[in-house]
Amino acid sequence: MTGLLTDLYELTMAAGYFEAGMASQKATFELSIRRLPRQRNFIIAAGLAQCVEYLLNLRFTAEEIDYLRGLPQFARVSGAFFDYLRDFRFTGDLFAVPEGTPLFAGEPMLTVRAPLIQAQIPEPALLSAITFQSLIASKAARMVAAGRGRGVLEFGTRRAHTPEAGVLGGRAAYIGGCIGTSNALTGMRYGVPVFGTAAHSWVLSFPSELESFRQLQKLLGPQTVQLIDTYDTLQGARRAAELGPPLWGVRLDSGDVVTLARQVRSILDQAGFQQAKIMASGDLDEYRIHEIVAAGAPIDVFGVGTELATSADAPSMSTVYKLVEVDICGIKRFIAKFSEHKESLPGAKQLFRLPDRDVLARSAECRSGAEALLRPVILEGKLLEPLPDAHAARARALECVNRLSPELRSLEVVDPYPLEYSKELQTLIEQTAKNRT
Amino acid sequence: MTGLLTDLYELTMAAGYFEAGMASQKATFELSIRRLPRQRNFIIAAGLAQCVEYLLNLRFTAEEIDYLRGLPQFARVSGAFFDYLRDFRFTGDLFAVPEGTPLFAGEPMLTVRAPLIQAQIPEPALLSAITFQSLIASKAARMVAAGRGRGVLEFGTRRAHTPEAGVLGGRAAYIGGCIGTSNALTGMRYGVPVFGTAAHSWVLSFPSELESFRQLQKLLGPQTVQLIDTYDTLQGARRAAELGPPLWGVRLDSGDVVTLARQVRSILDQAGFQQAKIMASGDLDEYRIHEIVAAGAPIDVFGVGTELATSADAPSMSTVYKLVEVDICGIKRFIAKFSEHKESLPGAKQLFRLPDRDVLARSAECRSGAEALLRPVILEGKLLEPLPDAHAARARALECVNRLSPELRSLEVVDPYPLEYSKELQTLIEQTAKNRT
Repeated sequence: MTGLLTDLYELTMAAGYFEAGMASQKATFELSIRRLPRQRNFIIAAGLAQCVEYLLNLRFTAEEIDYLRGLPQFARVSGAFFDYLRDFRFTGDLFAVPEGTPLFAGEPMLTVRAPLIQAQIPEPALLSAITFQSLIASKAARMVAAGRGRGVLEFGTRRAHTPEAGVLGGRAAYIGGCIGTSNALTGMRYGVPVFGTAAHSWVLSFPSELESFRQLQKLLGPQTVQLIDTYDTLQGARRAAELGPPLWGVRLDSGDVVTLARQVRSILDQAGFQQAKIMASGDLDEYRIHEIVAAGAPIDVFGVGTELATSADAPSMSTVYKLVEVDICGIKRFIAKFSEHKESLPGAKQLFRLPDRDVLARSAECRSGAEALLRPVILEGKLLEPLPDAHAARARALECVNRLSPELRSLEVVDPYPLEYSKELQTLIEQTAKNRT
Repeated sequence: MTGLLTDLYELTMAAGYFEAGMASQKATFELSIRRLPRQRNFIIAAGLAQCVEYLLNLRFTAEEIDYLRGLPQFARVSGAFFDYLRDFRFTGDLFAVPEGTPLFAGEPMLTVRAPLIQAQIPEPALLSAITFQSLIASKAARMVAAGRGRGVLEFGTRRAHTPEAGVLGGRAAYIGGCIGTSNALTGMRYGVPVFGTAAHSWVLSFPSELESFRQLQKLLGPQTVQLIDTYDTLQGARRAAELGPPLWGVRLDSGDVVTLARQVRSILDQAGFQQAKIMASGDLDEYRIHEIVAAGAPIDVFGVGTELATSADAPSMSTVYKLVEVDICGIKRFIAKFSEHKESLPGAKQLFRLPDRDVLARSAECRSGAEALLRPVILEGKLLEPLPDAHAARARALECVNRLSPELRSLEVVDPYPLEYSKELQTLIEQTAKNRT
């Protein structure tokens, strides 16, 4: 994992800390949600696995170090700093909210406690990895809620911001409640169920639609999903039915899916294919899924691309990575920013989940009857235990989301979930505000 | 480069083509812009280098082949197909519009001509690679236009959809006209100029702002950019000035930048720092840059993050990858879709740029006095010549954009640029429509 996958200022600051003799000073940074994305009542934490992979493998190659040496920003930096980079390892601690956990505005997702340089460099990679997947998981959860029990499939790799974002987006969509993805690499890497049969180019590659259907059936047997809208959807449905079994289902990708789904259902039923599924795809989002379901269209599975793979209505989220504490020769200094709209709260924290509210507290606090959400993941550079996989994260998400109120689970924006500060945290905030220069 | 970085249906179709004896049938696919993103008068092509890298390195590992073998969708597929995958190489042709070229709705970006399977599998990776970078380059061009000569820096890795998207986003932003990026890996990999000095955590890590400024100056010398808004912007400006030279400039990251920039300019000028630059960052987009410039604020460089790195107002674009031609035993069959809003035009094409309009033509047409934009890049699996680098692509973009009318270059949406179809293409469209079943 490349050490240069960061903003240059993290590296100039690293050099500066090193030259100022601050390399081994312990610092605590907190990655938290400043504001929820618009049109979201909660987000679902995802992407921790990639943060862990990054921290455990963070290294600087000789080529990277040479590149830095050649930059004007490093002209005044001593050779000792480059030696330090050559031997760089993350030796700190990571505390994190488990993947699949719903979170709200003002809540922390990760805490990094490490020598200052080691905690500073990961900022952009951690922010990017966890924010992106959390956005996608959250968007997926909305679509799944709108589907009211019907399956939602992630189909959006081609719209993702790079192919790699497609792979990780498929993972995040699954954690958010999708039943699977079209991305084959997501399937192999993360064990996510993969779906996919044929595109329009398949149908168009054969001399006739019927021939293309026949060949697909021969290939896929009971997995066969015929794409029936290339020429005429109802004609396509009739052809799929005429071929006889096996047939898992059909896919509609254009037109008025509510009307078409009813007509196709009737064609399939009359031909004895009561078990065959109808899948719909093409420009779907959670609002459109809600409408289609509300209209009673007999659709069993929704395939969603663009809107999910880019979290199109909220492609970014205001997450921040802030220094909250430094430890100089055993003396803690608490750090906070009090600027308007950009404030940050001092000190390492814990987030407690109670049945009816969350409580933000100081890291050493205990609270019975509440779930402590920030859990140790890496201690002194070592992974404590394997992380739950994507299946476990998905199960957690489904369970936690089901426990939220119907209002929070609705597509409309409602009042924020209550977040309280513990007395100890309040006291620390007041003291820190008083002491600032 | 992993062969599984694709949608599963591309691979099931590949198996189906193979089993149907169509593996070596030549096919032509066209990647084109169905519609421009909202609020764009043109896009700037970028991402071709990554498409080429992908095609030249596309392979299937033994692990990937084993994974596919175990999927129910491949239960009926013969061993010969998996042998084919083991030896898979892209042996086809790629024609592409050079990076840095402005393009409009309805125009092709790439043409892939290859044995059917080889042309089918790359669909999602090509779409994702080229669409994402083109979105970012296009967004960058708008910000650069709004800056009217002031520098625009890309600062958005932390908001990108995965860290890798941050690296490539930095590249694309540079092609679109930014003067550089904060992403260090973008700098090393693509030779893009990198910028970056210090964050708020730097200032907060020292006992006082003055001490942090002093240390930064010691580190960076003439590259020093002091971040002056951590406590109080004007006080910060005074402290930066009091330290004396060297000082490249200061950065404002919050507050009313128009007013603050004037006050800071005056502080710097009075202290003899007429040459010191003022950089502004924090929640900027092209409209805000336009306002700041229109207000006459003395800002020299803008640093842009979220809005640029995610193309926030248009995080996706309707690009498509469509089969336009198949070649069966030397007989060409032209393919088109005539569905409403989803039509595609038959046959391999050429795009000609004339001074006042573009002409979409058939691939073999010639036209004097016009630039043929779709140029050969890969022939029979081999790169024809090294691609122009990011600097050349950026120079092309700046030159081509300057040649567009002021209306097209404005931030408002104007009438579409004229795109005509050649007579030969029109004839082909009519014939193909007539012949369809």
